[in-house]
Amino acid sequence: MIKKVLIANRGEIAVRIIRACKELGIETVAVYSEADKESLHVRLADQAFCIGPTPSAKSYLNFTNIMSVATLTEVDAIHPGYGFLAENADFAEICSACNVTFVGPSPEAINRMGTKDVARETMANANVPIVPGSKGIIEDVEAGLKVAGEIGYPVIIKATAGGGGKGIRVARNEAELKKGIQITQQEASTAFGNPGVYLEKYIEDFRHVEIQVLADNYGNVIHLGERDCSIQRRLQKLLEETPSPALDQEMRDKMGEAAVKAAKAVNYSGAGTVEFIYDYRLRQFYFMEMNTRIQVEHPVTEMVTGIDLIKEQLLVASGKELSVTQEEVTLNGWSIECRINAENPSKNFMPSPGKITKYLPPGGLGVRVDSAAYPGYTISPFYDSMIAKVITYGATREEAIARMKRALAEFEIEGIDTTIPFHLKLLSHEKFISGEFNTKFLEQYDLTKP
Amino acid sequence: MIKKVLIANRGEIAVRIIRACKELGIETVAVYSEADKESLHVRLADQAFCIGPTPSAKSYLNFTNIMSVATLTEVDAIHPGYGFLAENADFAEICSACNVTFVGPSPEAINRMGTKDVARETMANANVPIVPGSKGIIEDVEAGLKVAGEIGYPVIIKATAGGGGKGIRVARNEAELKKGIQITQQEASTAFGNPGVYLEKYIEDFRHVEIQVLADNYGNVIHLGERDCSIQRRLQKLLEETPSPALDQEMRDKMGEAAVKAAKAVNYSGAGTVEFIYDYRLRQFYFMEMNTRIQVEHPVTEMVTGIDLIKEQLLVASGKELSVTQEEVTLNGWSIECRINAENPSKNFMPSPGKITKYLPPGGLGVRVDSAAYPGYTISPFYDSMIAKVITYGATREEAIARMKRALAEFEIEGIDTTIPFHLKLLSHEKFISGEFNTKFLEQYDLTKP
Repeated sequence: MIKKVLIANRGEIAVRIIRACKELGIETVAVYSEADKESLHVRLADQAFCIGPTPSAKSYLNFTNIMSVATLTEVDAIHPGYGFLAENADFAEICSACNVTFVGPSPEAINRMGTKDVARETMANANVPIVPGSKGIIEDVEAGLKVAGEIGYPVIIKATAGGGGKGIRVARNEAELKKGIQITQQEASTAFGNPGVYLEKYIEDFRHVEIQVLADNYGNVIHLGERDCSIQRRLQKLLEETPSPALDQEMRDKMGEAAVKAAKAVNYSGAGTVEFIYDYRLRQFYFMEMNTRIQVEHPVTEMVTGIDLIKEQLLVASGKELSVTQEEVTLNGWSIECRINAENPSKNFMPSPGKITKYLPPGGLGVRVDSAAYPGYTISPFYDSMIAKVITYGATREEAIARMKRALAEFEIEGIDTTIPFHLKLLSHEKFISGEFNTKFLEQYDLTKP
Repeated sequence: MIKKVLIANRGEIAVRIIRACKELGIETVAVYSEADKESLHVRLADQAFCIGPTPSAKSYLNFTNIMSVATLTEVDAIHPGYGFLAENADFAEICSACNVTFVGPSPEAINRMGTKDVARETMANANVPIVPGSKGIIEDVEAGLKVAGEIGYPVIIKATAGGGGKGIRVARNEAELKKGIQITQQEASTAFGNPGVYLEKYIEDFRHVEIQVLADNYGNVIHLGERDCSIQRRLQKLLEETPSPALDQEMRDKMGEAAVKAAKAVNYSGAGTVEFIYDYRLRQFYFMEMNTRIQVEHPVTEMVTGIDLIKEQLLVASGKELSVTQEEVTLNGWSIECRINAENPSKNFMPSPGKITKYLPPGGLGVRVDSAAYPGYTISPFYDSMIAKVITYGATREEAIARMKRALAEFEIEGIDTTIPFHLKLLSHEKFISGEFNTKFLEQYDLTKP
């Protein structure tokens, strides 16, 4: 078993990982940037080391400094959390070269899932449904027109090296496609140094439904049900829930099996998430991407399965088998997560960093708070603006919603603006309550007015 | 359905009840003493009224003032919580006379369980095992000697009007019994105005195991497993857990059935707890008493059953049936509760009231905090010294313990002394970890040294 872990991250996920380590009797080493020296993860870890100045490139992305601390403190493993180095195959490679276990999948798995057209092809070969489109990179505009003619408009042009909403363009007819391919290629060449683009059918109305998978190094791969993350603003998830109000057991089983196939296709190890586009009208789902790390929204899965995902990651990284089999996984009740950010929803979600003068998280039955905040803590403008994740559990969706509303209503945060008023509005919105919405929900309904 | 509830209590249980009401869409009215005007329950309720000066007799026990607020605010029901008026049959009677629903059982049920020899006789008639002893009050010393001769020494002499550890005396032989009966009768006459005493076999080594029951007004009575409350100091519970490390399924079933019989014998309604003396050597259990109210330690049962006990109380009081049947009750995992008090364990648990200057409750997976504390809150010397209940859940006892240790270690409370160091010591004690202990644990092992 791993005895000592360096957590190469900050904020709530660093705290989350430290908590799991403590419960397993694993020693913890925190690292922090100069801006983060007063952070909770620094206080909670057994040891903590500053790894550089505030810009992430000089601290949380700084291979050399992180590996120096790892060597100095003689850790067995490094947990990357999410973001930063979590999906950096080079970093995973360096860990391996330094005889430090990277808590995550192999560099090969990270690479294959991280390169869009490779992932697409890998999935197609593994019989995981992919959105109809070109077979790999399109050679020229003519080839693009041919593919679009076959799959039908609208189509989406994607740079293979793109990501995070960049290098993407929709075309609704031949003229838009011709122009779009050229522009996207040029942009991709400039932005990513790789002009390659491919085409996919553009599915306008869909739900974002993802499957949590767990795999060990002995060929065991299981899935833990879905999470519905359709409530998004500019591709940022704001609220996630499980089960999905849009899935029945048949669809859940099919999607779960597809996710297991996806993980097996890259010899996956540890915790990962296979994201799908779910076309609920046609009852079709398509592979979107695989996140080869723990996700922000992992707690809702923990609430309904009773499985501690971070502990499973640490067990697998220690060379153990998964603690549960697929047959032992049961999904009970309903869970919702709201991401509470230091942003002002009535000012177009403008970031609101600053000092938290008053802080009292909600408590009681069915309420979980994952946060690194405390009274007097300053939300830094240099990192993401998340203050806390509030997760509720209920026997039914109705109960989970009611509990979230009462939890958010009693959450006291003063000194900065937060997205709590936005979430309270969302939770009371007829359309949200009905469960019938897609990823365009927040474009269709403006919930930002005070 | 009840629409508006007055909560005739303070502290964490008032907050707990307000939370359940909010989730059910029930309006809440808080009442408070002059000392409690800054309390969290006052802030969280929809309305709040001062009901008098600090001494409980003038506020939280003041029938007139409480009923005035109830009338003024037109509530449908009063929830008494625990302590104060929760087991006061006269108050339940007055509620009924004022057409306000008392959230709890009938005055008759409260009375029959509240009078020791009546409860004992009722249980005997219902075939619930009682500790061998006299049939009701003993007439004189001779009758006492005869009973003791039959059941064997040691015996315990109990005043029927006693309670809370008063009016109780152990006798290990005839001489002690003769003297003991006379002294106890005299004391009881003076203290309670009732010289009646009865005899029971004195069981020296036992575990305190209690069964949670739920009953509606349609004859449905179910049990929700046990709680082991053997970790006590001077009859005060400090840590409770479910399941009990001492019970197997056969014993759990038997005890559960006995508890249901006990509840049925008094036409019980709502949530209640049947406490048993469990003689683990002989695998025998005996009725101790029934608490006709919600208990401090109810959360551990909620964690392993997923049933919200306060909501069930409110549903039953609204004339609904229980939301679950006995067959639907499943017990999953393990849960532990630690009562964190404002006391100094190294100074013989001396109360440590005062202002909480820093406060940050623990969070994350499997941790629940029920508390009315906040940064800046002052623990009053006038009421019980509980600051918070920390409840953890784990797949196993080992995980629940490990999680409690990490939760308590991260709980930040400054400005007052707390029992957290005591609990951390207890949770690491070999004997506690083994699960093999009885109610004398804290007499046998001194955990109060710093």
